[in-house]
Amino acid sequence: MSNPERSSSPVIIGVVTVSDRASRGEYEDRGGPAIQKYLNDVVSTPYQTCLRVIPDELSVIEQTLQELADTDECCLIITTGGTGPAARDITPEATETVCERMMPGFGELMRKVSLEKVPTAILSRQTAGIRGKTLIVNLPGQPKAIGECLDAVFPAIPYCIELMQGPYMETNPEFIVAFRPKKK
Amino acid sequence: MSNPERSSSPVIIGVVTVSDRASRGEYEDRGGPAIQKYLNDVVSTPYQTCLRVIPDELSVIEQTLQELADTDECCLIITTGGTGPAARDITPEATETVCERMMPGFGELMRKVSLEKVPTAILSRQTAGIRGKTLIVNLPGQPKAIGECLDAVFPAIPYCIELMQGPYMETNPEFIVAFRPKKK
Amino acid sequence: MSNPERSSSPVIIGVVTVSDRASRGEYEDRGGPAIQKYLNDVVSTPYQTCLRVIPDELSVIEQTLQELADTDECCLIITTGGTGPAARDITPEATETVCERMMPGFGELMRKVSLEKVPTAILSRQTAGIRGKTLIVNLPGQPKAIGECLDAVFPAIPYCIELMQGPYMETNPEFIVAFRPKKK
Repeated sequence: MSNPERSSSPVIIGVVTVSDRASRGEYEDRGGPAIQKYLNDVVSTPYQTCLRVIPDELSVIEQTLQELADTDECCLIITTGGTGPAARDITPEATETVCERMMPGFGELMRKVSLEKVPTAILSRQTAGIRGKTLIVNLPGQPKAIGECLDAVFPAIPYCIELMQGPYMETNPEFIVAFRPKKK
Repeated sequence: MSNPERSSSPVIIGVVTVSDRASRGEYEDRGGPAIQKYLNDVVSTPYQTCLRVIPDELSVIEQTLQELADTDECCLIITTGGTGPAARDITPEATETVCERMMPGFGELMRKVSLEKVPTAILSRQTAGIRGKTLIVNLPGQPKAIGECLDAVFPAIPYCIELMQGPYMETNPEFIVAFRPKKK
Repeated sequence: MSNPERSSSPVIIGVVTVSDRASRGEYEDRGGPAIQKYLNDVVSTPYQTCLRVIPDELSVIEQTLQELADTDECCLIITTGGTGPAARDITPEATETVCERMMPGFGELMRKVSLEKVPTAILSRQTAGIRGKTLIVNLPGQPKAIGECLDAVFPAIPYCIELMQGPYMETNPEFIVAFRPKKK
């Protein structure tokens, strides 16, 4: 199951803020930094990040996700923004286009958790999927929702990356206990 | 974010009963009236409804949804019927065809709520999506399930329509408190 | 609603293990036998099973599901395996290709139930759908998860098959009470 060559490869994580206003500098990006802080707290394995701030343009989002997956070899890409019902919100569609296989459980669980806070959580169209050896996970744009959503799904991410033949990632158990089923 | 011209436009809501038997007059339509009564109780902003009773024919459902969205300029279309596993049940497929973007959180939440009543709630394939400035929401056919499902999702609908640049809709808080996140 | 000719037809259930290793005989198939034991306990109507053990190859899975549905006239096909994020896991995609209509409620409920046990339940991409008069349901590969998932969804399966004009299936109420809404 494990691929030693790839397992010893560095952990590279893409962080993509999708926001017209943030990409034009009209608005301070708060989603990207919130994800970076989260990773800093939670991921105890050494890792690098690739940061992008891009507009809500389908082709730009698709190209950015493709480059981070294929060229930068990110094992994980986390997006923030563009998941709502507004006309320009198109991040889930871009994600679905670049992924070969979808992971519906991520969106279901994130909406369930957010729904405990606000009834408008059902408006978040966020999804997750797999492109090659890269897991792509959408988060909403609100910084407050980022921690809630990541707390819900992050325990499953290191094992997911392992099943995808990616690098071994350890978490800081003070924040998140990465779950790995016992070998049978 | 807000578009004053559109915001002052009237609230027009489409109500579509999808049922072979009701459309042939063999069966009294109970789903459409149940939705109308619900809207009458819950929506406090003046609104008009466009009512349709149509058969379970893919092309007829698609054309009806397109007309209500594009010509009648409904900000919201609620369908009832055609969401189950029977051979003629095809409303979710018609909805997906006419929508540019899907809203998976609506179906997830409605099934979750119905599942508290009956284990067969998982057979309901209902979904929701966006066509232009129109939110389309499928409900099951059973009049009893209509209130349950709308109670679950309606608190998020006025804000959704607002994010889609549609008219401002107020609800009667005795029935439903429309949730709008505080501006940051 | 009922079709007497089809209703008196035998209950034929397909059980498909999707596993490269099991199909090569390198690994004892435990998923298929776990499903067979479950059916033996739960289904009280006489039934036959069609068993298959096949590799994680898209075209083989698709062809197997098509044959079991169209030639063997299974009213129900249960698959095990190939639902995770590993590169070869492709059972949900094969299922979606051969089905005309999807049943999202099955995957949602199975993930919800598994999530009460392990946070990695969100990695299971299992789905369900309808091809003609056949309901196809994906289960994860782990024998332990099979009972949990079937316990969650089986109460709705006999009524689903009935709505699809399939045979009447009774369950052993000591294990599972098949739910059928009262006629209105």
